[in-house]
Amino acid sequence: MFQTFEVSARPEQGPPRLAALRGAMKAAGLDGWITPRADIHQGEYVAERDALLQWLTGFTGSAGFCAATADRAAVFVDGRYRLQVREQVADVFAPVDWPATQLPGWLRAALPEGGRVGFDPWLHTLAEVAAWEKALAGSGIEMVAHDNLVAPLWEDRPPPPDAPFTVWPIEVAGEDHAAKRARLGKGIAAAGAGVAVLTGPDSIAWLLNIRGSDVRCNPVPHALAFLHSDGSVDLFAGPGKADPLRAHLGDAVRLHDRDGFETALAALSGPVLVDPQRAPVAVAQVLGAAGIALVEGDDPCILPKARKNPAELRGMRAAHLRDGAAMVNFLAWVTRAAPEGGLTEISVVEKLEGFRRATNKLIDVSFDTIAGTGPHGAINHYRVTEATNLPVQQGELLLVDSGGQYVDGTTDITRTIPVGKPPAGAAGAFTRVLKGMVALSRVRFPHGVTGGQLDALARYHLWLAGQDFDHGTGHGVGAGLSVHEGPQRISRISNVPLEPGMIVSNEPGYYREGAFGIRIENLLVVEEKAPPEGGDPDRRWLGFETITFVPIERRLIVADMLDEGERAWVDAYHAEVLARIGPRVEGEALDWLKAACAPL
Amino acid sequence: MFQTFEVSARPEQGPPRLAALRGAMKAAGLDGWITPRADIHQGEYVAERDALLQWLTGFTGSAGFCAATADRAAVFVDGRYRLQVREQVADVFAPVDWPATQLPGWLRAALPEGGRVGFDPWLHTLAEVAAWEKALAGSGIEMVAHDNLVAPLWEDRPPPPDAPFTVWPIEVAGEDHAAKRARLGKGIAAAGAGVAVLTGPDSIAWLLNIRGSDVRCNPVPHALAFLHSDGSVDLFAGPGKADPLRAHLGDAVRLHDRDGFETALAALSGPVLVDPQRAPVAVAQVLGAAGIALVEGDDPCILPKARKNPAELRGMRAAHLRDGAAMVNFLAWVTRAAPEGGLTEISVVEKLEGFRRATNKLIDVSFDTIAGTGPHGAINHYRVTEATNLPVQQGELLLVDSGGQYVDGTTDITRTIPVGKPPAGAAGAFTRVLKGMVALSRVRFPHGVTGGQLDALARYHLWLAGQDFDHGTGHGVGAGLSVHEGPQRISRISNVPLEPGMIVSNEPGYYREGAFGIRIENLLVVEEKAPPEGGDPDRRWLGFETITFVPIERRLIVADMLDEGERAWVDAYHAEVLARIGPRVEGEALDWLKAACAPL
Repeated sequence: MFQTFEVSARPEQGPPRLAALRGAMKAAGLDGWITPRADIHQGEYVAERDALLQWLTGFTGSAGFCAATADRAAVFVDGRYRLQVREQVADVFAPVDWPATQLPGWLRAALPEGGRVGFDPWLHTLAEVAAWEKALAGSGIEMVAHDNLVAPLWEDRPPPPDAPFTVWPIEVAGEDHAAKRARLGKGIAAAGAGVAVLTGPDSIAWLLNIRGSDVRCNPVPHALAFLHSDGSVDLFAGPGKADPLRAHLGDAVRLHDRDGFETALAALSGPVLVDPQRAPVAVAQVLGAAGIALVEGDDPCILPKARKNPAELRGMRAAHLRDGAAMVNFLAWVTRAAPEGGLTEISVVEKLEGFRRATNKLIDVSFDTIAGTGPHGAINHYRVTEATNLPVQQGELLLVDSGGQYVDGTTDITRTIPVGKPPAGAAGAFTRVLKGMVALSRVRFPHGVTGGQLDALARYHLWLAGQDFDHGTGHGVGAGLSVHEGPQRISRISNVPLEPGMIVSNEPGYYREGAFGIRIENLLVVEEKAPPEGGDPDRRWLGFETITFVPIERRLIVADMLDEGERAWVDAYHAEVLARIGPRVEGEALDWLKAACAPL
Repeated sequence: MFQTFEVSARPEQGPPRLAALRGAMKAAGLDGWITPRADIHQGEYVAERDALLQWLTGFTGSAGFCAATADRAAVFVDGRYRLQVREQVADVFAPVDWPATQLPGWLRAALPEGGRVGFDPWLHTLAEVAAWEKALAGSGIEMVAHDNLVAPLWEDRPPPPDAPFTVWPIEVAGEDHAAKRARLGKGIAAAGAGVAVLTGPDSIAWLLNIRGSDVRCNPVPHALAFLHSDGSVDLFAGPGKADPLRAHLGDAVRLHDRDGFETALAALSGPVLVDPQRAPVAVAQVLGAAGIALVEGDDPCILPKARKNPAELRGMRAAHLRDGAAMVNFLAWVTRAAPEGGLTEISVVEKLEGFRRATNKLIDVSFDTIAGTGPHGAINHYRVTEATNLPVQQGELLLVDSGGQYVDGTTDITRTIPVGKPPAGAAGAFTRVLKGMVALSRVRFPHGVTGGQLDALARYHLWLAGQDFDHGTGHGVGAGLSVHEGPQRISRISNVPLEPGMIVSNEPGYYREGAFGIRIENLLVVEEKAPPEGGDPDRRWLGFETITFVPIERRLIVADMLDEGERAWVDAYHAEVLARIGPRVEGEALDWLKAACAPL
């Protein structure tokens, strides 16, 4: 099993550790200290060694930070973690609603003028620190970059992960790393820089066609790199980790020990391209101290990585057919077994992971499965533990959001399953969610349109009924990388134009607190679309190719609420699911699939 | 008649005037000169005296500019004016596609390094000049603020308009100007400034509850003002123009001659709030030369003016009922008369203006009526002239976009009328346009949503059919001010959240070049909406109140293409049109209205 259900929160360890931190603050002449969840790479997952926030406070969530002064300490968490934080941290840490309360405002209230607050500059981005400083202007409170104060207190701190990196085969990568390096190198020169600093492991993984196993769920390598305008690369990694890659990487990728990064950074000749949203502020400080010019700009891998090439798309499609068969096996099983009783959220997660593992192509899950029955379905990002595990009962909806990291691509799918008779209001809401999901699946749109402009299409029918959902409609998805990948997404706040090859999730939902949750999620690839018969001849169109093939729960569809076009889409989708997945399943699963894919 | 159909383009006058300008450039030591369409107020219309671009080149369009060097001259115009500019200007002026080609790029090609290009700093905004300078960085070309070179060449230049300003009654303004001044003054202090410079006549009109007749179509006063943080105002206007307002304005509004503006500006004590999108760059230069600190920020009137108060909304609703009756009289007439033959685009415009004038409450048209039959309907912003006037013929669509400035508000409405049998494809496209227009009319949305996020709802059904329209879906509308008013709009590029009281047009369309144009336009007011039965109890909603009441052409609606909700909206709308407008018309018009408002 890739997934576990224990949470080792030990709140009683927090107070002595906080006391030790306060001692260190005093010794360093600091009035406050910030402990973020992030590591230097700013990814979604951190290695055990980098879980400083968890070690200090007990909080295990995937986002948040602790701010401590001599007499106050707070753990800032967002809406997902309001309940969890109260169970995991001792009373000495006050939970703070974030982002409603921001760090600078809290510091202004907690500290007198002249207060000095320390932070580790390798764990915070340029943009983050700039925002603090802007918001603290005139307060007399100073943010002070300082060696980490928490790490030295952790006596039995685990070592860095040491598993060697692996090659991501050209068959699924689709473009040789030499070609990628040369192409991006030219862009760096065009941006007026001689070299770019890369600190995002997914950027480095994509650029060099390598993978790693340094964190859970994201097969990325913990490494840092310089990409020079001549296309050559300096790669910094822990001892021996890159050794198996020497033949793959060749002479133009020079290998260095991770510990030499800072010295090498100070020896670059500028201007150096640094991404203020992604790079640690320490990078700017090292460059500044060495008198090296810095150019702020996007990590040059971000957009090319987001625009998947044909081989990457082939891999993603193959992974989705394999994953679709695993999901159909799972849905056939759960549809039969759930009403018989005895299932729990954990047994559902285990069974589903088993179907995925049985493909023999699974590297990892792409995130911890969200399996929420009844009221748990309404909790965003719910992750079942031994402590929260509920039996799956009659009259409930079971929401299952899950995905796999396969040898050729990454999947992410949500289906909602009724157990017995659905609760009142569920089918109507499900159908409205479906109408939004179908609208996005079908839409054709001009070049230049952003996810921010399409988001309302997925909400319109919910809005008409006075309903909505409090998350984005879709996120970008990496190919054999992070299941959450930018820059594109389908969300009010996105102003990134959608481009061919980009992959986004399409996952509107509806949540009734204390009762049930509904979500339907497919993955979509942006593609050029031919104009239909009768369309304007001179316009060029984009649209989506759906790559997820799993039936949508017909027992929750109120067919009369669909218009002709929506109904035709559902029937055509189901016919295609049957054609593609039918040959990949058998027995009970095939029987279930045939019934699930019949026209509405 | 407020409208005329003559265009006095005399291309032959251009070459000698250009030669005179070149002489003035040489005498001033300049290698180029920019002549914009704008005056100091940056509004949509200019007084005759301020039409320097037209005087120099012959071009009468509402946007564009001329750039001249010693051996090249270009008139930059957007897509609306590509044909018109060729007829209006002599060959010495090359038409340039704008914004595809921008001024800085053209200057780089036209001038050697070291070139000095003059412009009148009272006619260009801070933002415009900053954009030039950014784009010219490194080119060696310098933009030089200079006294206007064109104005002194114009021997019989008309005097400034001298009509006195008038009071906009409190019954329609809804808030005393003292209250507005005090409220906005506090905001100026909060923005860290002591005074704001106002150069937009609609801002000044709204702030002081006054109107003017200095340009066509927009009843705004040509004036400039300082609004101080204590709520007092210095108002600068031409001789005697503000005299009738003394009692209305009171002591806290100090009247000054327009000529004293620059001197008074240099005597302000800072910091001074200046809107870089609206204020002439000369304001910044005068302040800079006097050593006065400048704070850049939005004109403080913009948002309060956009959020109409209850009295303004009452006035707008009353104007729309009056205008709706005029439109119904017009539509009943044109529906009968057009198939009989003999109508022209001009006779249509004249008849419609006649119906509006007959209300005895019309101050002006709110813009020149767009009446395009057949292929002219597909030309955006088409304005009929004696030279272009077409007969209205069988088998055509007649597109009529028009509006009035009434004593209590401003209207803007478009309807499309088939003459005889509609052309192939017209009814299907009309119905798709209607579906989009209905989607926006019906939508309910959360606080914080922008017009950029709603725009796709109006296009979705066109997009599915491979059709689209190349303009925004809607613009903001002033109350007794400009028919085009920011900051809100329904457009891809809008990131301004919609707020209660804001008014926007809802005008999707479809245009087939050389064949026909379709547009349907109502005005909408943003309002708080109660959640419907079954909606989430804790959510707060916004939506739209439609204030335009005129039937939508049923002969172009393919009823089978509407879903149940869309059809119900159309029927309910028509029932309301009949109830509200029925009592205001009689005879032929009432008979026509009843038939036009029957359920589909």
